[in-house]
Amino acid sequence: MRAATLAVGCVLPLAIAANGAGAATGPDVADFKLANGLEIVVVPDHRAPVVTHMIWYKVGAADETPGKSGLAHFLEHLMFKGTQKNPGAAFSQDIAAIGGQENAFTTSDYTGFYQRVPREHLKEMMALEADRITGLVLTDAVVKPELNVVLEEQYMRVANNPGARLSEQMDAALYLNHPYGRPVIGWRQEIEKLTRDDALDFYRRFYSPNNAVVVIAGDVTPDEVKADAEETYAKVPVRTAANPRQRPKEPVQEAPRTVTLADSRVEQPSVTREYLTPSETTAKPGESEALDVLAHVLGHGANSRLYRTLVVDKSIALTAGAYYSGTALDYAKLGVYATPKPGVTLREVEQGIDAVLNDVIAQGVADDELDRAKTRLIADAVYAQDNQATLARWYGSALATGQTVDMVRSWPDRIRAVTAQAVQQAARAWLDRRRSVTGYLVKSLQPEESRS
Amino acid sequence: MRAATLAVGCVLPLAIAANGAGAATGPDVADFKLANGLEIVVVPDHRAPVVTHMIWYKVGAADETPGKSGLAHFLEHLMFKGTQKNPGAAFSQDIAAIGGQENAFTTSDYTGFYQRVPREHLKEMMALEADRITGLVLTDAVVKPELNVVLEEQYMRVANNPGARLSEQMDAALYLNHPYGRPVIGWRQEIEKLTRDDALDFYRRFYSPNNAVVVIAGDVTPDEVKADAEETYAKVPVRTAANPRQRPKEPVQEAPRTVTLADSRVEQPSVTREYLTPSETTAKPGESEALDVLAHVLGHGANSRLYRTLVVDKSIALTAGAYYSGTALDYAKLGVYATPKPGVTLREVEQGIDAVLNDVIAQGVADDELDRAKTRLIADAVYAQDNQATLARWYGSALATGQTVDMVRSWPDRIRAVTAQAVQQAARAWLDRRRSVTGYLVKSLQPEESRS
Repeated sequence: MRAATLAVGCVLPLAIAANGAGAATGPDVADFKLANGLEIVVVPDHRAPVVTHMIWYKVGAADETPGKSGLAHFLEHLMFKGTQKNPGAAFSQDIAAIGGQENAFTTSDYTGFYQRVPREHLKEMMALEADRITGLVLTDAVVKPELNVVLEEQYMRVANNPGARLSEQMDAALYLNHPYGRPVIGWRQEIEKLTRDDALDFYRRFYSPNNAVVVIAGDVTPDEVKADAEETYAKVPVRTAANPRQRPKEPVQEAPRTVTLADSRVEQPSVTREYLTPSETTAKPGESEALDVLAHVLGHGANSRLYRTLVVDKSIALTAGAYYSGTALDYAKLGVYATPKPGVTLREVEQGIDAVLNDVIAQGVADDELDRAKTRLIADAVYAQDNQATLARWYGSALATGQTVDMVRSWPDRIRAVTAQAVQQAARAWLDRRRSVTGYLVKSLQPEESRS
Repeated sequence: MRAATLAVGCVLPLAIAANGAGAATGPDVADFKLANGLEIVVVPDHRAPVVTHMIWYKVGAADETPGKSGLAHFLEHLMFKGTQKNPGAAFSQDIAAIGGQENAFTTSDYTGFYQRVPREHLKEMMALEADRITGLVLTDAVVKPELNVVLEEQYMRVANNPGARLSEQMDAALYLNHPYGRPVIGWRQEIEKLTRDDALDFYRRFYSPNNAVVVIAGDVTPDEVKADAEETYAKVPVRTAANPRQRPKEPVQEAPRTVTLADSRVEQPSVTREYLTPSETTAKPGESEALDVLAHVLGHGANSRLYRTLVVDKSIALTAGAYYSGTALDYAKLGVYATPKPGVTLREVEQGIDAVLNDVIAQGVADDELDRAKTRLIADAVYAQDNQATLARWYGSALATGQTVDMVRSWPDRIRAVTAQAVQQAARAWLDRRRSVTGYLVKSLQPEESRS
């Protein structure tokens, strides 16, 4: 998951916990489609009289035309500029007036909008979102200032942040051909040239009820939602064919890459290696789940291999960890990282990482590690149900990247089924340096450091 | 210049020598346009009763739609499949029958076709080329076997050649956003899916008289060519608007990259660093010429800095050199390379390269080096006039990448005007590791070698 507007710092396990071992149950989720192709998912949650309402468009930065990077995210901003029916900031003012919260986010794969409001205002939100699926009005008077807002956001989030710049450069090096190599927020020189016409063309091409999913989590029943949807969303005409989302694929990756970013503000150098892997959508059965477990064993928490070896035993790193985020239409990444202790070189700490990875590849994982990782992954999913927005977000991100409600619901069972052998196989198959990029964040480009 | 069908191993100085010091004279070149927009350049060369006839379409791999890589080159192959007027292999059979030679080539920026024939057959060639600007007929019966020819070519030239594979990966890493990062021959998995419709769409979009340049060098006069062109090329209707060639630009490059390619067949490891630079078309006045001289001083011949230092003085390399090829619409590259002696690591030889580059950046170049490089560059251009096809190719590649006949003709004078200060400035500005990728060709991925 590659978010621009919302920062993504941790891995969200894409799952709803099962109530007890065995069959996937979780909340009684309803999933239906309107005649115009809009998919609606209802996740009942009656703990409080509130509702989270989200619409997910199946379009993101990876769907942009080359040379127009940042357009999906720019349009996300412009979606708040009003329609004929709800001009100007009427939408946001309505939400503020009822004490609601709202936000929006763009990734390579989707663009989402959400509101959290008292339950009696749900239909109002549905009417507002339905209106702006096709009703957006854009004038140069609103587009031009918003472009400056986006450029400022790019500056704050990326240009002014060495770690984010390195991450951007690593993506460009990791993907040789696929548009995931393009930053979601866009390349600055291309953002600067985006126009009202660019935004409207993109909007007309991708914003249509048959290219979206609505997720409603909260104190409602599917029947109530259905009735309200018929009076709101169902009235939106189909405007375009559904987005086929055929992106260029990667060639065979056979050459390890490195990227070194130097910035005088870097006080703690770090090394991060990312491996190209399948996503939950593209993996063979069991493979993405094994990668989830592998990342946990390698680098989640103080008991993980990387932390224990580099920080505790060898005492050469201040921190070390791993991550895998499988929610994507095409590819995902497994990452490992470490920050060396003062006096330790990046090369030494990288050799330490390699030793840990090679050991898992050669020896596999122990049963207790496997159990601990699986328990933790499933528990995280249980705890996360407490947050209604997180719950809605899991369903939305899954459905917007080619998964089904059943896949979300069966995730704990699929994690439970991961074997030690599957984890070792995943390590062997995917911890292959030829499919990796290693990023070095350093204070200055010394001949040594740049290649250490 | 990035050629697929014709290998490009050396730098072709894009110039016609002046007859004596001072003003650019060279052959009396004629340059005119037909009413349908086709540009025709005539380079008289009366030494033998032969003529070289070339047509250059201003379309190459960088103009392909993402996901359809290899299409420009595939179409180059298909252009030999016949038209209604000259079906099947009639074109090539005609040329063979009169004892002519022919070939074709594709780069990121252009696609070219040429014939070398006895002068009395020129009009026939013009008629044949005019016919296939818009008259190509393609059936699946010819397209499908040709796809296998191209796949075999990809195998022979790239997949089976570790150096070519590394070069492909380095391009993918050097260009973060511009389509020059895409191989001219295409990514194999995309070539495999190219169809007759893809080829015809591309053909109709880009093959039109107003999107091409004809270069005729040989034993003819401009008046003869004009008369023949009126009866052949002038009859081809305009089919499409001229290609605007607006490609995505590079973001600020700020992170040095490396790529390591391991192949068991590699007997001599090597290191190559490429720096992103302006091209002759995009450089500020004098800048590309200074880069030409810089590359010569650094790495052409046994007296060059890299060769003398690494091979002769330090005796750590078997070979070392540098190149700059400025003929491109958008960007060019300055490359430096070395092959370590057995027992010497890539790291040592790379440090040796860096020392040479840093010295030129810090101290500049000596007058005698400057003079030697300029004399050699200009002399090469004089000698190369002896080859009619080379002569025609210089004009064609220049005009197909946004240059003018005057730029080609003034090139020796522009080289003559390069100062030591300009060379040092070019070294300072463009030998910046942040805009570079370093490629390592090794036998196997050792933890050490991969990062050395």
